[in-house]
Amino acid sequence: MAIYLDNSATTPLCESAKKKIAYMLDECWANPSSIHHLGVRAKDELDNARKIIAEKISAREDEVYFTSGGTESNNIAIFGAVQKLRKRGNKIITSSVEHPSVENCMKALETQGFNVVRLPVDKSGKINIQDLIKEVDEKTILVSIMFVNNESGAINPIQLIRKAVLMKNSPALIHCDAVQAFGKMPIKVQKLGVDLMSISSHKIHGPKGAGALFVRKGVNIVSPVSGGGQEKGLRSGTEAMPAICGFAAAAEEITEIEKNLENVKFLRDNFVEKLKSIDSVVINSAHDALPYIVNFSVVGIPSQPMINFLSEREIYVSGGSACAKGHRSTALVNAGLTPERIDSAIRVSLSKYNTVEELELTAENIALAVKMLRRV
Amino acid sequence: MAIYLDNSATTPLCESAKKKIAYMLDECWANPSSIHHLGVRAKDELDNARKIIAEKISAREDEVYFTSGGTESNNIAIFGAVQKLRKRGNKIITSSVEHPSVENCMKALETQGFNVVRLPVDKSGKINIQDLIKEVDEKTILVSIMFVNNESGAINPIQLIRKAVLMKNSPALIHCDAVQAFGKMPIKVQKLGVDLMSISSHKIHGPKGAGALFVRKGVNIVSPVSGGGQEKGLRSGTEAMPAICGFAAAAEEITEIEKNLENVKFLRDNFVEKLKSIDSVVINSAHDALPYIVNFSVVGIPSQPMINFLSEREIYVSGGSACAKGHRSTALVNAGLTPERIDSAIRVSLSKYNTVEELELTAENIALAVKMLRRV
Repeated sequence: MAIYLDNSATTPLCESAKKKIAYMLDECWANPSSIHHLGVRAKDELDNARKIIAEKISAREDEVYFTSGGTESNNIAIFGAVQKLRKRGNKIITSSVEHPSVENCMKALETQGFNVVRLPVDKSGKINIQDLIKEVDEKTILVSIMFVNNESGAINPIQLIRKAVLMKNSPALIHCDAVQAFGKMPIKVQKLGVDLMSISSHKIHGPKGAGALFVRKGVNIVSPVSGGGQEKGLRSGTEAMPAICGFAAAAEEITEIEKNLENVKFLRDNFVEKLKSIDSVVINSAHDALPYIVNFSVVGIPSQPMINFLSEREIYVSGGSACAKGHRSTALVNAGLTPERIDSAIRVSLSKYNTVEELELTAENIALAVKMLRRV
Repeated sequence: MAIYLDNSATTPLCESAKKKIAYMLDECWANPSSIHHLGVRAKDELDNARKIIAEKISAREDEVYFTSGGTESNNIAIFGAVQKLRKRGNKIITSSVEHPSVENCMKALETQGFNVVRLPVDKSGKINIQDLIKEVDEKTILVSIMFVNNESGAINPIQLIRKAVLMKNSPALIHCDAVQAFGKMPIKVQKLGVDLMSISSHKIHGPKGAGALFVRKGVNIVSPVSGGGQEKGLRSGTEAMPAICGFAAAAEEITEIEKNLENVKFLRDNFVEKLKSIDSVVINSAHDALPYIVNFSVVGIPSQPMINFLSEREIYVSGGSACAKGHRSTALVNAGLTPERIDSAIRVSLSKYNTVEELELTAENIALAVKMLRRV
């Protein structure tokens, strides 16, 4: 029986998402922009999906825009905000450990002459709000900070950013990449104080190919996507109906977030305890990180052979983010870890469906790997 | 039994696409960037999908890039080409009847100072290659002309563009929006002489949410999308695996293009003959248009009541492009039709699955509508 512990890369689909997708493919495949009956029915499904996603983040329906995924949400949010506010200033604040879909937008903006400030993170992987307060000013047009880091699970103090922006009288829009947080922690956009927030379907047991961007009512951004004007002009292109409705079906399954969090914390704590008893294992994730992600290093054994060893035993973990394939982990580098520790890092990322037994078996196999691979 | 005649807006899914999607959701849902066994299996599926699409347009595998659909393909092609060549010139040539996902990119480029020349079309809806030869010059960096018009079915002489560009010693890249042509006419990218070509899944009985961009080997463009570097950096974001593999499964069903074309031509000719016998019907599509699209006007009866009348009888047609909902048809305006004729235009768009009986029943109902709606 396979043990899947790479849920931050992607998740297996829940049954209701699969069922909804099959329905969309069989029965409701029309174009929601068509004005005949079939089109109207598809449009109703799209509206319903929007309602579901809005409820899950405590937003208004007209604040939810569907995209093709987290990367597109981040691109539209960042380029769209900067394009809108470029006359107000030149400064952008982000963190040094963002996902490539944020970091590479920042690099592109730097080539256009924007001043991008990347806040450092502490050993636990979080930014310090004092650093943000120091940097944000009247020329700052965007603050983009991720909610939960995809490699370490570190949780940033997003709800404090609004206060910093107000205090410093900044026109900045606040964007948050909440892809790794959605479904795992309670998210209320008003309480978080964000203007823009990205979420993704395939991290919550929905299909790949859909995501959403929350845009706070009254906030205007200039979409970098040109076309037929779907999603009120923010994201043109025929809506990816099967993926969008599958996304909403998966989102509907997000219930009992607090209870799941408690369960996963129990799993995590038990797993970490087992790991600590293994020779040369060091835990990289902080104790206050989101318990869905456990990053650790088996010093002396590079990530790849460890992943292969476990993969052969049908235990699936990763060495870091799937989106940074082949690159040294930004999160760990910036948290100040040694190269040896970074090159031997393993990320175990959980879902609410994982069990104590799976993690105990995983810990046992890691212990075995240490013995076997050391010998080689 | 419903009669679906809005295949240029979107198509019902073929069985093999549905089957493939179900397989991807059930069995092969991993992230193709993950390096464990499950990820490798997903990567194999992605490679195989690319191989299938490449074969269908006679391209190399490494010339096919997956996107979220036709709109994104057009955006990446146009903004990407212009960004790459902006130092070589300022002029862009397109037609006056492009899809909004091309036309609105052009508008965005005009606000950046580019000189966009829109070639007129003749009564049949086609550009004149002489006009193109006159306009293209050493400062022209992009020519973007659609293969088949989505409203009239008019077929442009794409294969002559390369000659014009060479003749005038222009550095221009040639882009073609082939969304309405793919699967319906033979397409060989080398023979067409294009550098960039957009195609879409949901127009060929595949799912919404996938498309592809052909980029000729050796041609470099600068992607407007920033992120994890998927699709060799051209289109970052976790690949929409169910949609992409469903797209490829649908593409595999594209066989006997010539035979289907002949059958559809027979359907079209028979349908047009019936239409002509109805009082006040005028055919807008030219005789040499792609027979999959029949545009006609029932002068005196606006499009909307006609669409509703047919929709109530489970016959689904459109008034124009689904992506131009609520706007007067660009193709018909530019072909010089009168406002009365444009406002009463109906587009019947066929697939290889439609039958003579369906079209005869449709013609009968249109005749009935003329009687009934005239009386009101």
